[in-house]
Amino acid sequence: MPGPGTVGDFSERELVARIRRHLPPAPDWVLVGIGDDAAVVEPERNRVEVLSVDAIVEGVHFDRAFVPPDAIGHRALAVNLSDLAAMGAAPRLALLSLALPPALPLPDFDAIASGFAALATRHQLHVAGGNLTRSPGPLMIDVTVMGTVKRRQALTRRGARPGDDLYVSGTIGAAAAGLRLLQERRTHAVTEDTLTSASPVSRVAAGSEMERCIQRYLRPEPRLRMGMLLARNRAAGACMDLSDGLADAVHQMAEASGVGVSIDAAALPIDPCARELFDARGLDAVTEALSAGDDYELLLASRPRTRRGLTAAVRHGDVPLTRIGRCTEDRLVTLHRTAKGSIDAVPLPQGYSHFR
Amino acid sequence: MPGPGTVGDFSERELVARIRRHLPPAPDWVLVGIGDDAAVVEPERNRVEVLSVDAIVEGVHFDRAFVPPDAIGHRALAVNLSDLAAMGAAPRLALLSLALPPALPLPDFDAIASGFAALATRHQLHVAGGNLTRSPGPLMIDVTVMGTVKRRQALTRRGARPGDDLYVSGTIGAAAAGLRLLQERRTHAVTEDTLTSASPVSRVAAGSEMERCIQRYLRPEPRLRMGMLLARNRAAGACMDLSDGLADAVHQMAEASGVGVSIDAAALPIDPCARELFDARGLDAVTEALSAGDDYELLLASRPRTRRGLTAAVRHGDVPLTRIGRCTEDRLVTLHRTAKGSIDAVPLPQGYSHFR
Repeated sequence: MPGPGTVGDFSERELVARIRRHLPPAPDWVLVGIGDDAAVVEPERNRVEVLSVDAIVEGVHFDRAFVPPDAIGHRALAVNLSDLAAMGAAPRLALLSLALPPALPLPDFDAIASGFAALATRHQLHVAGGNLTRSPGPLMIDVTVMGTVKRRQALTRRGARPGDDLYVSGTIGAAAAGLRLLQERRTHAVTEDTLTSASPVSRVAAGSEMERCIQRYLRPEPRLRMGMLLARNRAAGACMDLSDGLADAVHQMAEASGVGVSIDAAALPIDPCARELFDARGLDAVTEALSAGDDYELLLASRPRTRRGLTAAVRHGDVPLTRIGRCTEDRLVTLHRTAKGSIDAVPLPQGYSHFR
Repeated sequence: MPGPGTVGDFSERELVARIRRHLPPAPDWVLVGIGDDAAVVEPERNRVEVLSVDAIVEGVHFDRAFVPPDAIGHRALAVNLSDLAAMGAAPRLALLSLALPPALPLPDFDAIASGFAALATRHQLHVAGGNLTRSPGPLMIDVTVMGTVKRRQALTRRGARPGDDLYVSGTIGAAAAGLRLLQERRTHAVTEDTLTSASPVSRVAAGSEMERCIQRYLRPEPRLRMGMLLARNRAAGACMDLSDGLADAVHQMAEASGVGVSIDAAALPIDPCARELFDARGLDAVTEALSAGDDYELLLASRPRTRRGLTAAVRHGDVPLTRIGRCTEDRLVTLHRTAKGSIDAVPLPQGYSHFR
């Protein structure tokens, strides 16, 4: 009996129909939905629109060898929703553009669609349209999202002022640690048998704490609820997400806002599973966590006088905030660490850059 | 002296700055522009929004061996604007997502941006944001466009009714002929010398008529003005573009509208340069023109009683419309051709399919 086949066995129309099975019916503000030249939607009253596009590319942003297809679909949308979260916007619609190698197995295609649709549905995001094309190379998923926010409540990177406190949501380093574990498992091809051996890989990789790091990499949770609460409570003067790591985000916010930043290394909320892995590998946890990508947490600057709004956001939110430093008048971006009893101030390392 | 280098020598930020040089300043409805996590825009009053995404992929939709980089940038946007034209929408904004092989020469990158920006500027389309990533495979350009239209004026595929006349804008087959010429030139590596020889390739390829076909392929003109005039004059019951060829469009409109269609082969506005090439290659011009992709003309159905609005659209428009057939009560999609003095009715061939 032949297997379910690959996407190359199907027409574009059949593949679109398979995606639609995962999607709920269109809301009434969608006047023309999937299947025409374009979607037609009614704009939301008294809100401004927040638009972002982000792509994930096989071999650059994920490896099909250890990222399951539903996680690929999840991640493709999560990285975009994280941008909406950073602006304080409520998600509204998405457009999904897929470039598919014809040899992609049909069950993988279905799982990508299902992972994408599950996250969209959970955040009341409507998939209004998309595009399917063949790829002669890697699998690529390009997602456009639109959200909405009240006009004066949109959060930007440029609103930080000297004296603001800097906070980060959740924990950092977990996704990078998870990715490292997945890569190591792949390299060492750890089996049930070798898991019981004494190699450092298997000892660290076996714990359920480590499994949590892996999930943080595979299925990041965009901080939409926190972003919306910060916007509504006017509790953040500036906000952005950590797609390229905390150090990169701090540098970008400092530059966009025209302030300096002083970060306290001891205050960084490094995820315990990440700390355990970095320690086991003999790596400096602070350095690793600062440059670690893929966390999709939020960095925000908050005036001390809006502390009440911030407290309320944390109380009604689903993720903690940790104060990690302060914005300064001078334009220096420094990291303060305690070494041998004394506190050293060093320039904060630069972050990750895509092309170089 | 080292050359200008490749995109792999630059950071994402530097490349974004190079793109921005080609773009005019943001209009006042853009509240947050390029450089933040997302763009923030004010929606247009009393209009609904038309959204579409389309990708072009190296090796699938274009070949860098014979499509110059500015034409790649132009085409990436043109295929999207054509979707807006088909809905009767006025372009408003675009998001540009590029997946770039690091070895892409910097001048090619600049030319892609310049070809894209020139077409955007000509149609008052604002580039509100985008994404840049590395591609380990082909160059891919994913473009999202948003346009606007008055609520009851959006043109869809599903409004054709029995008795409607079917029209197509401009001419068909030219882009396919142009692509064929470019491919033949590449295969035969026609040089100045062999151009004067008697090979069928060079004889046909030398004329300026042929150059026009090539331009139609390289730099298609989205029929935005005609689409907007048809919408404003309520002169089209249904409309769509011909991205995958006329036969495919006719089938899709017939199915979406629940009508049959009868096409008159003799009426098809086959471009003279395409007819010349197809004749020279011993191909049936009607068959070729029906399945030819890349024309980006409009197919529309119009009630005979809205003839006045249609005439006005043609008078104020920049492209002719040709009546090619009629919508029928029965659900058959037929092509009528005169063969040996008698008229044969045959099923209209199916169009192009991306994946099979």
